[in-house]
Amino acid sequence: MAPKISPLAPGDFPWMPAIPGVRLATTNCGIRYKGRDDLMVALLDPGTTVAGVVTRSLTASAPVHWCKKHLPGGSARAIVVNSGNSNAFTGKAGEAFVQATVEAAAKLAGCEAGEVFVASTGVIGQPIPTDAIASNLPGLSNAFDADGWFPAAKAIMTTDTFAKGSTRTARIGDTTVTINGFAKGSGMIAPDMATMLGFVFTDAAIAAPVLQKLLSDASEKSFNRITVDGDTSTSDTVLVCATGKAGNKPITKAGDKHLADFRTALEEVLIDLARQIVQDGEGATKFVTIRVEGAASDKAAKRIALTIANSPLVKTAVAGEDANWGRIVMAVGKAGEKADRDKLRISAGGVLIAADGMEVPGYDETPVVAHMKGQYIDFLVELGIGEGAATVWTCDLTHGYIDINGSYRS
Amino acid sequence: MAPKISPLAPGDFPWMPAIPGVRLATTNCGIRYKGRDDLMVALLDPGTTVAGVVTRSLTASAPVHWCKKHLPGGSARAIVVNSGNSNAFTGKAGEAFVQATVEAAAKLAGCEAGEVFVASTGVIGQPIPTDAIASNLPGLSNAFDADGWFPAAKAIMTTDTFAKGSTRTARIGDTTVTINGFAKGSGMIAPDMATMLGFVFTDAAIAAPVLQKLLSDASEKSFNRITVDGDTSTSDTVLVCATGKAGNKPITKAGDKHLADFRTALEEVLIDLARQIVQDGEGATKFVTIRVEGAASDKAAKRIALTIANSPLVKTAVAGEDANWGRIVMAVGKAGEKADRDKLRISAGGVLIAADGMEVPGYDETPVVAHMKGQYIDFLVELGIGEGAATVWTCDLTHGYIDINGSYRS
Repeated sequence: MAPKISPLAPGDFPWMPAIPGVRLATTNCGIRYKGRDDLMVALLDPGTTVAGVVTRSLTASAPVHWCKKHLPGGSARAIVVNSGNSNAFTGKAGEAFVQATVEAAAKLAGCEAGEVFVASTGVIGQPIPTDAIASNLPGLSNAFDADGWFPAAKAIMTTDTFAKGSTRTARIGDTTVTINGFAKGSGMIAPDMATMLGFVFTDAAIAAPVLQKLLSDASEKSFNRITVDGDTSTSDTVLVCATGKAGNKPITKAGDKHLADFRTALEEVLIDLARQIVQDGEGATKFVTIRVEGAASDKAAKRIALTIANSPLVKTAVAGEDANWGRIVMAVGKAGEKADRDKLRISAGGVLIAADGMEVPGYDETPVVAHMKGQYIDFLVELGIGEGAATVWTCDLTHGYIDINGSYRS
Repeated sequence: MAPKISPLAPGDFPWMPAIPGVRLATTNCGIRYKGRDDLMVALLDPGTTVAGVVTRSLTASAPVHWCKKHLPGGSARAIVVNSGNSNAFTGKAGEAFVQATVEAAAKLAGCEAGEVFVASTGVIGQPIPTDAIASNLPGLSNAFDADGWFPAAKAIMTTDTFAKGSTRTARIGDTTVTINGFAKGSGMIAPDMATMLGFVFTDAAIAAPVLQKLLSDASEKSFNRITVDGDTSTSDTVLVCATGKAGNKPITKAGDKHLADFRTALEEVLIDLARQIVQDGEGATKFVTIRVEGAASDKAAKRIALTIANSPLVKTAVAGEDANWGRIVMAVGKAGEKADRDKLRISAGGVLIAADGMEVPGYDETPVVAHMKGQYIDFLVELGIGEGAATVWTCDLTHGYIDINGSYRS
């Protein structure tokens, strides 16, 4: 049965221009899926810098370990990603698979193995034949295409119901640069079949340490602000590659004032991709924006917002179109950050529901009920304590989630 | 529609003997429910000591605030509990309701207001008429009964599908003492309609500070080891009252060697009640025991066990009868405690599934599949790092949970 496309899916995959120095190819290498591509390879011209953020999981996959080891090198010539098997908890066999893959990709790209980056997404704990990817790489040599963004985004999907892409341009000095990204993810993690992966490419010339700072900051405002089920993948990986072909004066300092527009555009691409992952949340029927203001710090605001966003009771209430603000009070109370019952204000869809330690006198639920029936739900939680603020995105918890994750693997 | 009784419910409510110095009464005071009692009052003879543990929520209810304020007094003469409304986030009106209730109960019991303890469970944020309980208390004066345990346990139920009680005897020196407890709770919290409350009574003579130490220790091994959905109530309250009528030499020191048997019996009562709460977990069809061994510390073991127990992906896999050990690897990885992929061992139903960083060679899933089809599921996670161990109990996450919590309040 083909999966139904999420009711929250945006329109078509965006048109994305070529990025000089980036070529893409996909194929089926038979790891799990039949009748669709499950391998994506990006080739990058010499001189491409790279930055990455990976899962904090202590049981991270072999590909994650490889990326962590080689990201400090700062140079990338190839990215190899497969779907259908995460190569996590696969022991020495998993490490041998990574080694065989990067060696074959290095030969294809004409580079060092340490300039190849890998990511895998899918079932945990199932060994992959060592040469499953390596044996397929030589045959790809004529398949690379500067316009292959949509097939690339599709090849890395697992339980995703739509391909996720985003593109922006930015000015660095007098030069226009392009940023293209694609991502996959459906449960924040569903380790059987999903994980969050993101790959971003730009023709800007930016030194690797600067790119790393930009990515770390932007991830904090995007991928680290979404949750579907609060679970953490063993494979989460986001890579940004900068080919330098746009011809801007190379940026070597994170504080360079010419970076302002690029920083904003990168943030926009990452937030767009992050929101699309939530829009494809397993079983999601509603997209929920949780804004927390007036917390003791931004960090406290984020923790409170994520506690609300991860509460099964809040998420099931949204699924039931119930503006059950008592559950938000509960979540604020359990977040462990400073809160004062009598200063807390809770609004939904712009309507103040509770303040001064109780329901607002004469509260009329009618507009809130109407808001809860929509697809995009907004909660505002004001703590009245400090200046800390954060926005987090999540989806509702529905029967669909149980169906997807409660069914047997095979 | 009357709720179906949980498939995990134990047999009948246990027979519980009278505890000298404790009398119970119940009635309907019309706060929410019709056709059933929603108020439980316990009267305690002079000289009764009390200890309590309450929610750590920072948005705790007015009754919780009252208990926290008066528990240090160490003396209890009455406990008043209502179901149907939690009196949480009800502002000054909620405080006035507590004040009116404790004053009326103090008059009934012939004691100080500070010797009356209160708990409320049910909807958050709905004011209760100030005298809803107070006006009903005088009429109860002839209704108290030393054998009213089952009606008492029923009167405090909300979404619970069965009444929860437990009884044990213990020896203190040459004296046999009795411990009776009853509890309610169905979601670890479903703040609409549920919360975890527990009331325990003994005829032992134990000073309040000693009782507090015993309760805190035993709660850590019982109520703090269960989770249904990881949410935390604004109202959770457990009280233990000791009437001293058994005639044992009063215990005034926590280190008293005569306490060993009582400590064990109290732990057993609390664990029994805690397990019954999980057995009545909203939508639960399977009872899951998660044992973590070999962690860096007991605290680390508990955190890892709770992370596994709270993972929606683990819980939906159990619902789907899928021994999806990859999701346990994922949960161990996200717990944030020390773990080593290559030392981790995972077993289900006594069968070792994964070790040495991968699935056990030749792993035969047959006995594990059979185990997962049962009602009682056991996972053992061995970290191989230290001596820390902990056991946690939870239930599966099913469509029933979504049905119960996704339906509109009214």
